[in-house]
Amino acid sequence: MNLIEEFNAYRSQMNDKILAEDNKVIKRIFNLDTNAYAEGTIDVKSKEMMGLACSMVLRCDDCVKYHLGKCFEVGLTKEQVFEVFSIATLIGGTIVIPHLRRAAEYWETLENQ
Amino acid sequence: MNLIEEFNAYRSQMNDKILAEDNKVIKRIFNLDTNAYAEGTIDVKSKEMMGLACSMVLRCDDCVKYHLGKCFEVGLTKEQVFEVFSIATLIGGTIVIPHLRRAAEYWETLENQ
Amino acid sequence: MNLIEEFNAYRSQMNDKILAEDNKVIKRIFNLDTNAYAEGTIDVKSKEMMGLACSMVLRCDDCVKYHLGKCFEVGLTKEQVFEVFSIATLIGGTIVIPHLRRAAEYWETLENQ
Amino acid sequence: MNLIEEFNAYRSQMNDKILAEDNKVIKRIFNLDTNAYAEGTIDVKSKEMMGLACSMVLRCDDCVKYHLGKCFEVGLTKEQVFEVFSIATLIGGTIVIPHLRRAAEYWETLENQ
Amino acid sequence: MNLIEEFNAYRSQMNDKILAEDNKVIKRIFNLDTNAYAEGTIDVKSKEMMGLACSMVLRCDDCVKYHLGKCFEVGLTKEQVFEVFSIATLIGGTIVIPHLRRAAEYWETLENQ
Amino acid sequence: MNLIEEFNAYRSQMNDKILAEDNKVIKRIFNLDTNAYAEGTIDVKSKEMMGLACSMVLRCDDCVKYHLGKCFEVGLTKEQVFEVFSIATLIGGTIVIPHLRRAAEYWETLENQ
Repeated sequence: MNLIEEFNAYRSQMNDKILAEDNKVIKRIFNLDTNAYAEGTIDVKSKEMMGLACSMVLRCDDCVKYHLGKCFEVGLTKEQVFEVFSIATLIGGTIVIPHLRRAAEYWETLENQ
Repeated sequence: MNLIEEFNAYRSQMNDKILAEDNKVIKRIFNLDTNAYAEGTIDVKSKEMMGLACSMVLRCDDCVKYHLGKCFEVGLTKEQVFEVFSIATLIGGTIVIPHLRRAAEYWETLENQ
Repeated sequence: MNLIEEFNAYRSQMNDKILAEDNKVIKRIFNLDTNAYAEGTIDVKSKEMMGLACSMVLRCDDCVKYHLGKCFEVGLTKEQVFEVFSIATLIGGTIVIPHLRRAAEYWETLENQ
Repeated sequence: MNLIEEFNAYRSQMNDKILAEDNKVIKRIFNLDTNAYAEGTIDVKSKEMMGLACSMVLRCDDCVKYHLGKCFEVGLTKEQVFEVFSIATLIGGTIVIPHLRRAAEYWETLENQ
Repeated sequence: MNLIEEFNAYRSQMNDKILAEDNKVIKRIFNLDTNAYAEGTIDVKSKEMMGLACSMVLRCDDCVKYHLGKCFEVGLTKEQVFEVFSIATLIGGTIVIPHLRRAAEYWETLENQ
Repeated sequence: MNLIEEFNAYRSQMNDKILAEDNKVIKRIFNLDTNAYAEGTIDVKSKEMMGLACSMVLRCDDCVKYHLGKCFEVGLTKEQVFEVFSIATLIGGTIVIPHLRRAAEYWETLENQ
């Protein structure tokens, strides 16, 4: 199982278990998460770039992986993804670099799958 | 060795090594950590819920595990723990969700041990 | 206008303007915020203590003020509030102390109003 | 002097003083800041939306003001800006709301100037 | 009352009120704060530079002011302080810049008092 | 392969891949990272202690490992490194402790290699 399958499998298994608890607040937050990134007055590509950049500056590897998967799906190029990386690293500082390494590795895996 | 034993073993081994260095400030912080969660004008259950919620919004998986262990010991129910999860996820945002997944997994391990 | 009136007036004026924009995601988040702190399997007092502790470790003065107002309303004592402060300062470190100062000042204003 | 003039005046006065110290690392960071947001494989509007979203999740009011000013200049609409706000508030949680209030006020000032 | 007097007066007044509450955990944290920065195997100057750098990357203006005051007292030069600023801004990213502006202003006030 | 070799190998492999993308902003940030820690009006030892302390309060394990490696190289003693740990844990709070455990383990590996 590669990085992508492992990430997706765990994510989807645990999401199911969490939603099964039927906590109203958590269910609504999960629901909002789908709504917020849908096409609106801002297009999906720009929203995914924002999601990726925010995930990097907040240094959340799993969030970065999730949004990289989406960025790949919606057709962002490697150059664009690295431009998002550059803005996030500048805003968030060198503390972001370890996450940048894992992000670059995950993007490479997405391209080679 | 399951998730719980692995976490506890590493935690306790490294705490011993750290305390053996005899750094006064570190020793006192470790000591305060025991004091602060003891029964006071606030009961232990509420304190552990606070410890859990703070650990989640600060996105510290090991701290979450530690407080989940304590929440389990003092008799919090799964519904209560998920209510803490919901407040922490609302306050801390979707960036908390990857930690929520690992927290839900750890709680399940605690219940099944 | 004292600290409390000033805080509440600005908060309520801006909330109205934000909700008037009719952004579905923002409206639902505001809505969830009311839901999450309602009595559940965890009582309101414990939830407000969690809200206060999380606000302090995340170092958000306005969030601290809001939850202090609620803690006062639901009848927490000064000793209890200071116990929440102590746990938050221990978890979040000395970086929390400037927020502790403003929190102590706001609580005093609540008691003297 | 309104919110915008006050912000810009202090920002520009202090930037001058900081750059006058001639610290090479600081000067280069300031320089990179200009480069990173220039048109590239990602357009300026999307970059400014990213800058705004990151500033909100990191809860930096001055950074939010700066990027709101830029978003206004490059022609983003109020609906678009509120969509950025919604994504940032969802990612960063309710802890972002006090910053959302100040952001909404600043945007209103930009529109009314 | 200038920036320095205002900061010191509020800090000292609120510290007194907080310590008067006699919360054991809080009192010990305040106490540790004095201990940790005392001469040890690391000299006071280096400790204050660390305190300043940490305060900047954690973006706590009051903590920055406090450590700038100490850095001034122990005789750090403007060049050294700006070198600390540069490392902190690099590690913490451009999000630190608004705090750098206020830090530079406070240092100038310290030099001109 | 021990902890140190594993860390260095991944770090250096991914740095090469990232720099190969030829993103100007990222390359300059990497470059600044070398410049900022070079001997200046502040000596290299103090700079590395600052880098270590900032990495701990920002809770970045990889950054901690990197600076621990440098602290070891420039000849800091175990007592000094634990004094940096103590200041970082006090500033950043008990949330830093899990990172302190991994830092203590990594330092031990450096000493035993």
